[in-house]
Amino acid sequence: MHWKIIGILASIIVTSGFIPQIIKGVKTKRLDDVSPGMYTFLLFGMALWISYGVHIKDTIIIAANIAGFTLSLTVLCLRFKYKKRRKNQ
Amino acid sequence: MHWKIIGILASIIVTSGFIPQIIKGVKTKRLDDVSPGMYTFLLFGMALWISYGVHIKDTIIIAANIAGFTLSLTVLCLRFKYKKRRKNQ
Repeated sequence: MHWKIIGILASIIVTSGFIPQIIKGVKTKRLDDVSPGMYTFLLFGMALWISYGVHIKDTIIIAANIAGFTLSLTVLCLRFKYKKRRKNQ
Repeated sequence: MHWKIIGILASIIVTSGFIPQIIKGVKTKRLDDVSPGMYTFLLFGMALWISYGVHIKDTIIIAANIAGFTLSLTVLCLRFKYKKRRKNQ
């Protein structure tokens, strides 16, 4: 049980990592240095993790990867939104 | 076995995601928009994942997180290196 909590904590910390990235982006209105390739890999990988989690019926894997997928998609969308906006100015 | 391969593939894809970010950074010599907070969370979370993997003796968790930890640390170091270099110019 003790180690299960470590696993859950690890998932929460890694997934929370996207939040400071989103905050930084929203504040500076710029995410040009962020690699779209990286976030494309993450989206594919996390989608696979979700299907794996569903198959082995692991709620932690499913929840962590749905959260991670949503946050990654947010970073990617903000990146293109800010880039496009600056181009049009 | 088929689903184990999906899990391994998911780990490899997510971990590989850092590579396009490193390549982008090395090419542009700029990673200012990348959040150091995000990578600090990732380093802590992945260190926990490694200890969890060691405890449950799961080679995939250990390998994926050692690779992820090393690549994240690379992104974080490059970010500060390029920022410092530009400041000194």
